[in-house]
Amino acid sequence: MAKDQRNVEAITSMEVDFTQWYTDVCKKAELIDYSSIKGMFVYRPYGYAIWENIQRAMDDMFKATGHENVMMPMLLPESLLQKEKDHVEGFAPECAWVTFGGSEELEERYAIRPTSETIFCEHFKNVIQSHRDLPKLYNQWCSVIRWEKTSRPFLRHREFLWQEGHTMHATEEEAREETMQMLEIYAKFFEDVLAMPVIRGRKTDKEKFNGAEETYTVECMMHDGKALQSGTSHYFGDGFAKAFDITFAGKDNQLHNPHQTSWGSSTRMIGGIIMTHGDNNGLVLPPRIAPIQVIVIPIAQHKPGVLDAAGDLCDRLKAAGLRCKMDSSDQSPGWKFAQYEMKGVPLRVEIGPKDMEKGQCCIARRDTGEKTFVPLAELESTVKELLDAIHDNMYAMALQNRQEKTFDISSMEEAKEIISTKGGFLRSKWCGALECELAMKEQVGVTSRCMPLQQSRSMGKCPVCGKECGTDIYWAVAY
Amino acid sequence: MAKDQRNVEAITSMEVDFTQWYTDVCKKAELIDYSSIKGMFVYRPYGYAIWENIQRAMDDMFKATGHENVMMPMLLPESLLQKEKDHVEGFAPECAWVTFGGSEELEERYAIRPTSETIFCEHFKNVIQSHRDLPKLYNQWCSVIRWEKTSRPFLRHREFLWQEGHTMHATEEEAREETMQMLEIYAKFFEDVLAMPVIRGRKTDKEKFNGAEETYTVECMMHDGKALQSGTSHYFGDGFAKAFDITFAGKDNQLHNPHQTSWGSSTRMIGGIIMTHGDNNGLVLPPRIAPIQVIVIPIAQHKPGVLDAAGDLCDRLKAAGLRCKMDSSDQSPGWKFAQYEMKGVPLRVEIGPKDMEKGQCCIARRDTGEKTFVPLAELESTVKELLDAIHDNMYAMALQNRQEKTFDISSMEEAKEIISTKGGFLRSKWCGALECELAMKEQVGVTSRCMPLQQSRSMGKCPVCGKECGTDIYWAVAY
Repeated sequence: MAKDQRNVEAITSMEVDFTQWYTDVCKKAELIDYSSIKGMFVYRPYGYAIWENIQRAMDDMFKATGHENVMMPMLLPESLLQKEKDHVEGFAPECAWVTFGGSEELEERYAIRPTSETIFCEHFKNVIQSHRDLPKLYNQWCSVIRWEKTSRPFLRHREFLWQEGHTMHATEEEAREETMQMLEIYAKFFEDVLAMPVIRGRKTDKEKFNGAEETYTVECMMHDGKALQSGTSHYFGDGFAKAFDITFAGKDNQLHNPHQTSWGSSTRMIGGIIMTHGDNNGLVLPPRIAPIQVIVIPIAQHKPGVLDAAGDLCDRLKAAGLRCKMDSSDQSPGWKFAQYEMKGVPLRVEIGPKDMEKGQCCIARRDTGEKTFVPLAELESTVKELLDAIHDNMYAMALQNRQEKTFDISSMEEAKEIISTKGGFLRSKWCGALECELAMKEQVGVTSRCMPLQQSRSMGKCPVCGKECGTDIYWAVAY
Repeated sequence: MAKDQRNVEAITSMEVDFTQWYTDVCKKAELIDYSSIKGMFVYRPYGYAIWENIQRAMDDMFKATGHENVMMPMLLPESLLQKEKDHVEGFAPECAWVTFGGSEELEERYAIRPTSETIFCEHFKNVIQSHRDLPKLYNQWCSVIRWEKTSRPFLRHREFLWQEGHTMHATEEEAREETMQMLEIYAKFFEDVLAMPVIRGRKTDKEKFNGAEETYTVECMMHDGKALQSGTSHYFGDGFAKAFDITFAGKDNQLHNPHQTSWGSSTRMIGGIIMTHGDNNGLVLPPRIAPIQVIVIPIAQHKPGVLDAAGDLCDRLKAAGLRCKMDSSDQSPGWKFAQYEMKGVPLRVEIGPKDMEKGQCCIARRDTGEKTFVPLAELESTVKELLDAIHDNMYAMALQNRQEKTFDISSMEEAKEIISTKGGFLRSKWCGALECELAMKEQVGVTSRCMPLQQSRSMGKCPVCGKECGTDIYWAVAY
């Protein structure tokens, strides 16, 4: 008992210490555990179940657009990684290297994949010979290792779970269409499934993926005003194809290099969910990926018929296709309320003797705390409506937060003033010069997030050099 | 065109060279590709889709029995692996070792997991304190690395995909029940989903898992009479719990060590499917995990209405919940027939102008080659019946093969004679002595497969030492 009570002790308030609040939620909602390997985490059942629901929903969207799952080896020979110059420069410094197999030292060392462009290219070379073999639309769900210096649950792991899509196309046009299609799938997924509004945009050359020609991104604002890069889609041109000598016979009977894309999203998303929607009572989960959408809690469960009535509600909701659980443990209702609030369960259904007399139950919303009494006959329809309403409200609240914390700036003074007092996204014009981008980082402490796809098409001044220019850009402190 | 034709060239006959036939099927059915890393393979879309279907069906069975998925780090510090003596002795010689993170040499080297008992135990120590925390019923889907000298597609990879269950229980009795429950789940999965008959049994001490008290197995016979160990379930007692100092406060307020199990199955299963059911036309897939259950092929597809009629059949079958695909490419029907036979698609539906006139289609079975004309109105019901009939027939054929190739022996001469002329499973009594087990290996070339759970309860002679004894045992050459 003592232990269980500890678990629902109040967490640090997010206004007091956002970082500590975040760590508290990860621990108390039982999402992760630390391991003895620095920077590597255990995904506990509740945390992993969120990832499974994300996987299922996203995988359906990938398959509906013709993508197939594959699995490549997790080890990359160093010589393979070195075939594309920009790529190896970016990733080699943070690879974990395997040097021994059993007791034998390897002739060549292997990197545990930090990303898999190179090994996909090796395979593409084997299976692409004719225009009939294109496009190849592949995706893989796996974990990758990047040997980073610092770590935070979900946001920065030395090993993290992700999906990486890798596609090859006969023409540049098709590959560019794929790049934008996948960006749009990420955006829709964040908005329609995770209730997280995104800004779709293109990365600057400084911020793009190592080896890519162009990188597109969906950027989200967290509750504290910082940015989270949440999914990226890259257009590679035929650079890797040339480096790996991948060619196909076109309809013209000439040999061509195919055009390539890759796109990825990871368990960082779970960090994004926590920091977008969470509050001082813990996690608040978007209904469409919540492992438990409805928790049924019997009130005065020792009274005759209460457990049966609660079990019946739970069965009805399961039969209606909802992820529902009943908690009939011997903890107090108050303890249970706090526990499932901490775990971010979208809806709580309570039923006790008085409710049974009146043929009703009480439904409480996690997002607003609102309680309603609902006639039992209307249970399923009301619950489904409420889950949609919660999704919409969570999206609206997150959008409002972003709008309130987005500021147009036109000078460095304004930028510094706003970042030091309010935080959030800075929106400005940008002349396109790397020096101005670096100056924003050095003087204001923000990085460029993206040049939004929706451009205002007006002219203005670059806040750094004052040059007249037309490109809109977002800046922020990022996770 | 030239390339496509090559792909349906005849494969090596299994009677001529079973090993080459197997490799041909893996390549020609587009299940795998080789990579530049020795012993590591690419799972191509069709091969990986089989694995996804296996995962989904098995995962449902695990969850229905209360198991939850988690994900542990893939790296194990050497000191962690060394905590259980028998375990480290078994696995350390075949670990891949990470010695560098980026450019820095690590203070302690890390093994890429060959199996995860140790890291699960580290986590169990953090989350188990009270009897209220038990049982913990965890499973993880991941890949593991074992640095083996030789390799064969699906059967022996340096990296392979698998699931590993790890559970902790308050009592020995509960842990033993779990061990047997999971064995039974594997057996049911093989029989009801993969159409593969199994022998449930216990491994000898020589063949059990490193660190386990007891190992149970399901053993299958391949078409060539050799054995494939297809899933194992281990009872550990409290050995690891003691080594890792995992304790819980019981209802008696005393500290106890919990009792542990683990159980695993891997992509070897796909090798098992190929070698159990395949024939000289290629793969034959069990309908319940086939990525494509029904292929619809339009005949004379340039004639008016044919493509629409074929598309309509495909839509109807999809709407009935079946995995169905239409091939309207410009290859000839004959090429398509051979292609989907190679890929083991259970049913082929053909429709052409004559069929349309008669309101029928033609359905061909992959397992028997049998063709039937079916009125269009009966399409869905007939297809579903046929898929079940195919499953049953595949199971019956595999069982018949096993029965025909299982031989009772009572002397070494008999054993040698049968193995050298017929192959298959040898069934005998066994006195329990390690020397006799080793003699069977040295003199006959067979290993003990298992002591079947169903024992005859009769007495007989150990074929090696001639001692009177009661234990039934199976011997075979194994993959």
